[in-house]
Amino acid sequence: MSGEHEHVYAVIMAGGSGTRFWPVSRGERPKQLTRILGEETMIQATLARLAGMIPPERVLVITTAAIAAQTRAQLPQLPPENVIAEPVGRDTAACVCLAAGVVERMDSDGVMILLPADQLIQPVDAFQNCLAAGVEVARRECGLVTYGIPPRFAATGYGYVKQGAAADAARGCSVHVVERFVEKPDQATAEGYLEAGCYLWNSGIFTWRADVVLSELARHCPQLTAALEPVRAQWGTERFDAALEAAYQPLEKISVDYALMEKVETIHVVTADFDWDDVGSWDALHAHLDPDAQGVASRGESLVLDCRNTLVFNEDGPLVAVSGMDDVIVISTANGVLVCPRGGSQSVKQVVGELKQRQREDLL
Amino acid sequence: MSGEHEHVYAVIMAGGSGTRFWPVSRGERPKQLTRILGEETMIQATLARLAGMIPPERVLVITTAAIAAQTRAQLPQLPPENVIAEPVGRDTAACVCLAAGVVERMDSDGVMILLPADQLIQPVDAFQNCLAAGVEVARRECGLVTYGIPPRFAATGYGYVKQGAAADAARGCSVHVVERFVEKPDQATAEGYLEAGCYLWNSGIFTWRADVVLSELARHCPQLTAALEPVRAQWGTERFDAALEAAYQPLEKISVDYALMEKVETIHVVTADFDWDDVGSWDALHAHLDPDAQGVASRGESLVLDCRNTLVFNEDGPLVAVSGMDDVIVISTANGVLVCPRGGSQSVKQVVGELKQRQREDLL
Repeated sequence: MSGEHEHVYAVIMAGGSGTRFWPVSRGERPKQLTRILGEETMIQATLARLAGMIPPERVLVITTAAIAAQTRAQLPQLPPENVIAEPVGRDTAACVCLAAGVVERMDSDGVMILLPADQLIQPVDAFQNCLAAGVEVARRECGLVTYGIPPRFAATGYGYVKQGAAADAARGCSVHVVERFVEKPDQATAEGYLEAGCYLWNSGIFTWRADVVLSELARHCPQLTAALEPVRAQWGTERFDAALEAAYQPLEKISVDYALMEKVETIHVVTADFDWDDVGSWDALHAHLDPDAQGVASRGESLVLDCRNTLVFNEDGPLVAVSGMDDVIVISTANGVLVCPRGGSQSVKQVVGELKQRQREDLL
Repeated sequence: MSGEHEHVYAVIMAGGSGTRFWPVSRGERPKQLTRILGEETMIQATLARLAGMIPPERVLVITTAAIAAQTRAQLPQLPPENVIAEPVGRDTAACVCLAAGVVERMDSDGVMILLPADQLIQPVDAFQNCLAAGVEVARRECGLVTYGIPPRFAATGYGYVKQGAAADAARGCSVHVVERFVEKPDQATAEGYLEAGCYLWNSGIFTWRADVVLSELARHCPQLTAALEPVRAQWGTERFDAALEAAYQPLEKISVDYALMEKVETIHVVTADFDWDDVGSWDALHAHLDPDAQGVASRGESLVLDCRNTLVFNEDGPLVAVSGMDDVIVISTANGVLVCPRGGSQSVKQVVGELKQRQREDLL
């Protein structure tokens, strides 16, 4: 593994605390730490997808203090110090700056691949080839690289990347200059994007040399790099955590999109040729759990009789029997039971909102 | 209490093991031992409805060995020996013969009111007045008395009693000779009964002198009374249980309807002027749990948002959140979760049947 991908690092962003998979995901056990898709948790699968390309000692995980211990426990192959806990959430620019600083300290030629911990991606070989293409482009252009997914439908739940001028392909993957990033569109706009053919879903995966991103950050957010410089200097020492704690609290919350993506002149986008889904809701999950001919997918101890288009997900509750229902989502855990219609991701939001209002943080 | 109702005994039949309220009711905790209707279990409510009319020492409960201990624990005001456990189920004729034998031994002038343990009846004063009317008729006619409920709709789930010639009223309740008992009708027949006006729902409550029913049984089922004679003789001694054990096993299974009701020449029916429901399904229960203007009724820790005509019953499971659903029944217990459509009592049956087939008796 010391050959082709030497100097390549992965930074897994794993600080999410979404409640879109309530009651399975909760504050103290967000989506990336759950087994909604199989035997592995999503973060375990994310690490496993890098195997053979990037060894564990070159993988960093940025997470939060609340879930750092669980995250380390789920990733025993990582050196524990590679799981870095942000003392408080300060949005993604701080996270990227912190990670880039550490990577650069570990390896001044380091190229880092930044990726979310909770996506579903396959197959592994196409994925790794595409990542390697991005590494090649990041080195070649000394710039920032993102990965775009050819849209399968007019999605309104994702941001888009508009392709500009074509650049040289890398490892069989087509590469373009990014003309612009666009926010989640409305339905009509999304349909226009799909038709136009030059818009890709923004995968949230990025690649760049650590020193390049640090200098871009120093240019566009000098106060951020300055504030995190003392932290970076302590990497590998026992004073790292204290430095992190001291530096993080006063940081401004800025997203990497705002801090970098919108400001950096030239960014390249590699067109992904792998299957990608950020599995953002129970509805999205349903499709990935092999529904039968009636559209019924079930996990855990369950009995589903005479149902259609139904998801029954029993994590660790008692047996769940669903009979004679159509288009319903039933989720059971030791923490709570959810019953809502399919297409009702909104329902989860309402339930979570109502539980917050009732100050039932014990359930969230 | 020694005055008016002296010599009046109640026999509560509490051997049921229905699974129509699965997962709340189960083999080891049938409906009458559950709190589906409130703070009291149904058998506790049944006993409470007799208070002021029949003292606990004149109440017998006939149940099964499997649930006798729980039944005694729920009815601490009863002398423990008054809860009699049938060693095996031998249908209702054996149960009646056993109870009548015991009552007759306790009091040779005893009149017994036989009633199920799992019905919803109110108000208490009308109920007790009606029972007392039946006692009066049973004494006056030296015969069998049943209670009929004026039908509120064309029910197909109940048996019916057809009124014959009018007899003298008792305590303001009208009394008729029974022309015949009829089984659960189909819809068209039930509508005919409702229109005819002379058909009453068979409440399953009966009254008779213990010596009268014993002599009727001796006439129509001599082998039954003969077999139970040695048991009756041991009432009040420590050999009672052993005698019961020895006598019961070989008994033939015969229902009291077949053994008595269809054979005895003259039976009287008292028209009930109380509200009566045998609450035979989750759907039936829904109506009794004070649904709000949207038809939503919930019990236990639950969150019901934007639902209509929905029952959420959380016995002892974690919080149950139901959002955006219409016409659904959601039941949660530490033993299992059930989700089925309203009007889907059939669904419960299917689930229970399937669990049996899968040999999941641990859940039944």
